[in-house]
Formats: sequence, structure tokens, C-alpha cells
Amino acid sequence: MAGIDDQHTKYLLSEDEMPTAWYNLQADLPTPPAPPLHPGTGQPIGPDDLAPLFPAALIEQEVSTQRWIEIPEEVQAVYRLWRPTPLYRARRLEQVLGTPARIFYKYEGTSPAGSHKPNTAVAQAYYNKQAGIRRLTTETGAGQWGSALAMACAFFGLELKVYMVKVSYEQKPYRRVLMETWGATCVPSPSPETEAGRRILAADPASRGSLGIAISEAVEEAVSRDDTHYALGSVLNHVLLHQTVIGQEAQRQLAMAGAEPDVIFACAGGGSNFAGLAFPFVREKLQGKPIRIVAVEPAACPTLTRGVYAYDFGDTGKMTPLLKMHTLGHDFMPAAIHAGGLRYHGMAPLVSLLYEQGLIEAVALPQTQVFEAAVQFARAEGIVPAPESAHAVRAAIDEALRCKERGEAKTILLGLSGHGNFDLGAYQTYFAGQLVDYSHPREEIEAALAGLPRVQG
Amino acid sequence: MAGIDDQHTKYLLSEDEMPTAWYNLQADLPTPPAPPLHPGTGQPIGPDDLAPLFPAALIEQEVSTQRWIEIPEEVQAVYRLWRPTPLYRARRLEQVLGTPARIFYKYEGTSPAGSHKPNTAVAQAYYNKQAGIRRLTTETGAGQWGSALAMACAFFGLELKVYMVKVSYEQKPYRRVLMETWGATCVPSPSPETEAGRRILAADPASRGSLGIAISEAVEEAVSRDDTHYALGSVLNHVLLHQTVIGQEAQRQLAMAGAEPDVIFACAGGGSNFAGLAFPFVREKLQGKPIRIVAVEPAACPTLTRGVYAYDFGDTGKMTPLLKMHTLGHDFMPAAIHAGGLRYHGMAPLVSLLYEQGLIEAVALPQTQVFEAAVQFARAEGIVPAPESAHAVRAAIDEALRCKERGEAKTILLGLSGHGNFDLGAYQTYFAGQLVDYSHPREEIEAALAGLPRVQG
Repeated sequence: MAGIDDQHTKYLLSEDEMPTAWYNLQADLPTPPAPPLHPGTGQPIGPDDLAPLFPAALIEQEVSTQRWIEIPEEVQAVYRLWRPTPLYRARRLEQVLGTPARIFYKYEGTSPAGSHKPNTAVAQAYYNKQAGIRRLTTETGAGQWGSALAMACAFFGLELKVYMVKVSYEQKPYRRVLMETWGATCVPSPSPETEAGRRILAADPASRGSLGIAISEAVEEAVSRDDTHYALGSVLNHVLLHQTVIGQEAQRQLAMAGAEPDVIFACAGGGSNFAGLAFPFVREKLQGKPIRIVAVEPAACPTLTRGVYAYDFGDTGKMTPLLKMHTLGHDFMPAAIHAGGLRYHGMAPLVSLLYEQGLIEAVALPQTQVFEAAVQFARAEGIVPAPESAHAVRAAIDEALRCKERGEAKTILLGLSGHGNFDLGAYQTYFAGQLVDYSHPREEIEAALAGLPRVQG
Repeated sequence: MAGIDDQHTKYLLSEDEMPTAWYNLQADLPTPPAPPLHPGTGQPIGPDDLAPLFPAALIEQEVSTQRWIEIPEEVQAVYRLWRPTPLYRARRLEQVLGTPARIFYKYEGTSPAGSHKPNTAVAQAYYNKQAGIRRLTTETGAGQWGSALAMACAFFGLELKVYMVKVSYEQKPYRRVLMETWGATCVPSPSPETEAGRRILAADPASRGSLGIAISEAVEEAVSRDDTHYALGSVLNHVLLHQTVIGQEAQRQLAMAGAEPDVIFACAGGGSNFAGLAFPFVREKLQGKPIRIVAVEPAACPTLTRGVYAYDFGDTGKMTPLLKMHTLGHDFMPAAIHAGGLRYHGMAPLVSLLYEQGLIEAVALPQTQVFEAAVQFARAEGIVPAPESAHAVRAAIDEALRCKERGEAKTILLGLSGHGNFDLGAYQTYFAGQLVDYSHPREEIEAALAGLPRVQG
């Protein structure tokens, strides 16, 4: 490999260099992941159990052990609207920090939805369209996933109904407008449109909703209608699979720069952003390359660092299959931090397995430090990071400062999963000095973990 | 030239292909522009008159007739954070419209500020820094210019004070937060911090401000402090000059696509976005290429299509030099349309001259049709256009539909100057059916024009 490039700021691939297959980590895992279990019987579920929710192609991807899964041409055609995404060398940030480290960042904010989420939204919309499905349902909290799926459905002519957590529906009207601009219908959850919603409203007419309730509503509607499926934005194997275009592109771009990463940082909520950047590098690690790969989570929702590895439900309503994962318990209510995309009680089973096997590390950070790093990044590099992505920025800056102390010229790769254009309210709170750091006391986490289902696994 | 490329969606230039000089239209104009006049004496102004506001390098650029003006390496280094910007073939939009026309769009929304404005903001910050200036002042309406300059000042370590029209300061807190994220200080105008502001507040304590008042405040502060200069985001020759990287890149990218434009559409407020895309193609036109070049303005502020070509002030407060331009009169109050960047009573002198000479055309469009086109574009291409940019989208779609009627395979180039991520409130109003089209009655425009200063020119 040639020496490291000391000229360029940005490494772009041509459309012809965009990956044509997703990388499936399941082909290379030392041990296979534990199967999902049926929430009623506790037995491993089969494809038929998932058929009311997902098309056959996605159910196959969920369990496939084929290493490369071809990206359909129709999906590639949509990807090309913003992919390949750029890899940047953060030269200005390096100068500000005075570090000998080299910092690269892979930026997914160039998608029209502003984050990595469309990588899987487009694929899911495509496979559903192919299967003759006319409508999709989904849930969304702050709206990042809902808006990505709304755009994808516009491209494939699918209707979309988004159950949006009521408190966000009211507080974040612009994300809702974005979904409507792309043609989706958005309803505040809990809604009177489902059994699950009516039950909640009967008990508490003023309920402000939760992601767990919204999932229940979206799943209930999908199950009850033949023309309608459900789409999930993280956690599941096929969702992580679709994100691996990120890491594959980064590998090629780092090669253009003559660089190999010593350490990689990506934020982890449900795990799809982390997986998308990390999995192709996990493969390199399994082949012997000494790469540290670090998942960065919020101190207020420390799934990997303070959760347990156990079977748990994906939702608070206990409607989903049981997944073997790191979890804080499906009853855990994370503090109301501004990185809404990281407020999830569980972690993707594949990411959890890697952590359990010591192939990846994890660190949990408080949000004040995270926003401090985000502002430093914005003033050096221009891009205002999404609060989620800013977790990786903080971790990368900390590593670069350690390199400065020790005089080490490490190569750091950081995943910048999206921009913060829709999150300026969070920055406003930070500047007002009103950001609160929150660490859940041990007793609170233990109480939530006490509610874990009792199954073998 | 090879045949037109029928494969690709996106045409990217490498960093090495970024323009290294700005194109100065003044070198190629058939007749020179009329000189600016002193607001007091009515005589042509000299460099000394502008020295309290601008550094010498920019004053030189204002009057230079040198065809190519080198872009300083420090400015190029910042440009490379997001430049070269992509040129897209709008294949999906072409399909939706069923047009034989080919539609290309040059997208400036990839800058961290989300518009073309940083192209000049970075240059202006650089030259001021070089001249030993420590602080800049400026005004902003909706905040697009203010945020671009805030980012530029962060890069060069300059302080920035932004006088933000009070009604926008209160209604658009997120743009303000964006400016603060990049380190700028933002005050609502009219403010008690200047003579001009205090005078307005004394007369009307509830004044909600205007761009004219904010300009007066920013200019007054710059004039009164040795360490402080003023920066303007459009209209002036040097501002238009800095934007010509847009058109130069588009020329190279169209060549990659094997295409030559038959017609070009760009929105025009003060004129800098239009000039940035158009001027390099005006040069081709002067060399004999049959290109139609169309400025698209809002029906509610029809400077080119309904204004007169005369000397007028740049601000309502009559503090600026007199410029020979198309104007609706400095007292004209455009209706409160959502394309805030197009609500300016005048038009850049260089753009006005081209229009007067018949080298460019102009069309004025009502905002409801503009938003309809914006939504159609978003659902086909993903990107949600800024309300300003959506004017060019509407005009391009209309042209593509005319091509469909006539069976013409024209090549259309449209300037997409920015994204609408910060303008979703406008989309919300559109979806609610509350958007009002406004056409100023003839008497109203005549009344404003009656206030034009009486000078020869």
C-alpha cells in the first residue's frame, strides 16, 4: 500500500464503485447467533411466524449465512441519488486538537433524509413492493426512521402510515412535515385507530405515548391487513445487513487515502448504524487485522455497558419475538436525552454477540460532553453532527487527545451517521446550559432487569 | 463531444478538478456597468468611500476587469470541505413527468450551511482576516446568509455579529441556534445597540424589523469601529464573482455527461445564486452558443419583470451607495412569501445589465405553484428544495412539460441552490392549504417607484 495521502480532504467513489452486494456477517461468525423465540411458546420461530409482517426476501435475509447478498438494481438506482457517500479527512479538527492522530469520518448525512436510515428503508420498501404489498406501517420517535421510510415509500409508490410517539408528534412538527412532504400519513400514538392504542387511551386519555406503544400499534395494523406489512429501522439482522454499504465504501476510501484504521468509533442505539460501519471491518479483524472497534452509547441508556445478555422482548408491549441481546429490560425507560435514536432498551443480537465474544468494545458517554464535542466539530469541519453521531465524535476526539499525550499517530475512523439540521432544539438547550446528564442508579436498572422473561437460551 | 451519457445519475468532480479561479464577467461584458454613486453627492464613488466597510482586496474585485481571479489556497482548502458539489441527472423526475427532455440539477445544498451562500462567505471572511480585521457585522432575514457567514467566520477565527430581523429572530429560533453553534452573536433588529436601531425603537417600540433596518444597523456598527468590517451576501460584483465556482463546475460536469444545456433556470433574489450558475454560461453565449438563460423570481417580488432599470439605494434607510439596477424602489415591501431569500427590492447591477441587454430572460412565478413543484421534486428525487430553489424547479418542470407536448429532447439545467431542511414550516403552510399567492397591484409598485432618487445615469 502506498504511503498515507497528505493532500486531500475528501475521498469520493464514483457510482461505478458503489458496492453491489451487502456483506452478511453471519457467514463469518465464529458461533451462530441464538435464534429468536416465539413470545407465547418460547420456541424458536420459523418463517411463517414472520410472514404477516415481512416479505419472504427479508425473512430469508434474516437467517441467511451467505456472505454476499446482491443489492437489487432497483435499490442501487435509488442509492445512487446520494451514494457513494463521502469519506473525509478531518484535517481542520486535527489541527484544532493539535493531535498527531489522523481522523477520518464517513458521512451519511448526504442522504436527503439526513442520516444512514435510508440504506435499509429503500431496500425494505423495494422488497415489499416486489411481494405485492401496497402499504407499510412503522413507528417513529423523533422521526429519523419515519422520514427515511417515507422517502423510500415515495420512490416505490407505497403508502406509508407512521405511528409517531405523541410527545414528538407535538413537539417536532417539522419532522412530521418532512414525512408528509414525501407523502406519508402520520398519526400521533397512542391513537384510537388500533386496539392497542384504544386500550392505552382508555386507561390514560392524556398518554404522551412511547416507542413501545407505537410499535404495538404499527404491528397490530400490519397483522390485521393483507395488503399491509410492517417495517423496522434497526435491531434485526436484515436491517443491519443493508447498512453494510457504509463500511464497504469506507474500506475502499481508506485505501484511496493509503490508510488503515487502528480504531473505529460509531454510535449504537439499536445497532444498525454501528453495524453498517463496523461489520466489514469485523471481517478484517476476524482475518487477523488488529483493529479496535468501539460502540459508543449514551450514559443514559447504557445497553452494552450496563445491560445483561439475555432473551428479551423488542417492545414494551411484549408483542415481538424474544431476541437474545444486551438489554436493560423491556420496561426500562431511558432518560429523555436528545439523542432520540439511542434511547432503546436493547441492542441488535448480532452486535450483542460480537460484544459478548470480545470482538468489539463499548463506551458510554454523558450528553453534555457529547454536545461539547459536537460544537467543536462543527466549528472545525462545518458539519453540525446529529446528537446520536456526536457520541462517536466525542469518543474520537478523546482518542485523538490521548494520541497527543502519547505522541501516537493512530488512524481513527469515525462514523458520522447524520447531520443535526433537525436537532437544533437540542443545541439550543445545550447553549442555554440546560442539558442534564443522567446516569440511571443501579437499583433502577436492576428493577427493569427483574422483568426479563424467564426462558432458556 | 461523445454522445449523451445514459447511465449515470450523479456527476462528481475530484478535489483536483475544483476551479482554482473565479470567473469575472466584467472582462467579457459588451458594455461596462454603470458606476455606483455616492448617496450624498450623486458622484461616482471611489475605493476610499468603501474602505470603512470592505478590505482592499474585495474593493478591487468589485471593479476588476481581469477575466480570471485566482482563488486563494486558504479559501480553496475550506471549499474542499464540500466542493466540488454534485451535478445530478434528474432521471426519476424525467420519468414522472414523462418528458423527452433531460433535466440536470446542480446542487449547492451539500454545504454545511445548506446553500450556496458559503461560496462568498468563506472568501469574504478570508480577505477580511488577511486585512487584519477582527470582527464582521452583517444582517440576515431568514438566516441563510447569516449562518453561512457564521460558519466562515468560525473557520478563520473572526468574531461575527448578526443583526437578525426581529420577526425572524423570534419565529425561526433554529437558524439562530445554527449561527450560535458556529460561534456568532445574534441580536434582534431593531436593537438598542445602534443609533439607527434606537431611532426606530423610539418611534415604534414594537417594530418587528426589516432587512433595510438590519442593514443600517450592521453598516453603522462597522463604520464606527476600526476592527470591524461589514459583509453583504448578494448584489455586489465581488459577491457574484465568488459564486461562479458553481457554473464552472457545472460546465465540466455537463461535459462528463456529454451534454450541453439548451436552457438554464436559476432563482434570483439579490442575484448571487443566479449569477453563480449563469455567468460562466453567459460567457459561452457571448461566444456564440445558443443558450437560453432564465432568472426565476417570485410574483410577489418581481424585480426584473415589473421593476425599472434605474439608480436606487440598496437599503430602505438610504445609507448605501446608489446602484444602477432593476428595482421596485427601496420603499417597496414585498409580500411575506416563504422564499425569504428572494424578497429584495433590487437586483444585482451585473444581472440587471444582462437583462437590459437581452442576454438573459426572466419569469415571475406564484408561490403555490412553486411549492407544488417542490413536492413533486422531493417525491421523485428525494431532496426537499429550499423555497427559493423551488422557483427554478417549477420553471424547469414547466419547460420539461412543454418539451413533452412538442416532443423536444431539450437539455435543461436547473440550479438547486439549497435544501429546505430549515424551511419545513413553509411546507407545513402549503400542506395546510394556507399558502397565499400575492401579486402587487400596479398602483403599489408605481407608488414605490415614485420614491426613486433623482439622479442621472
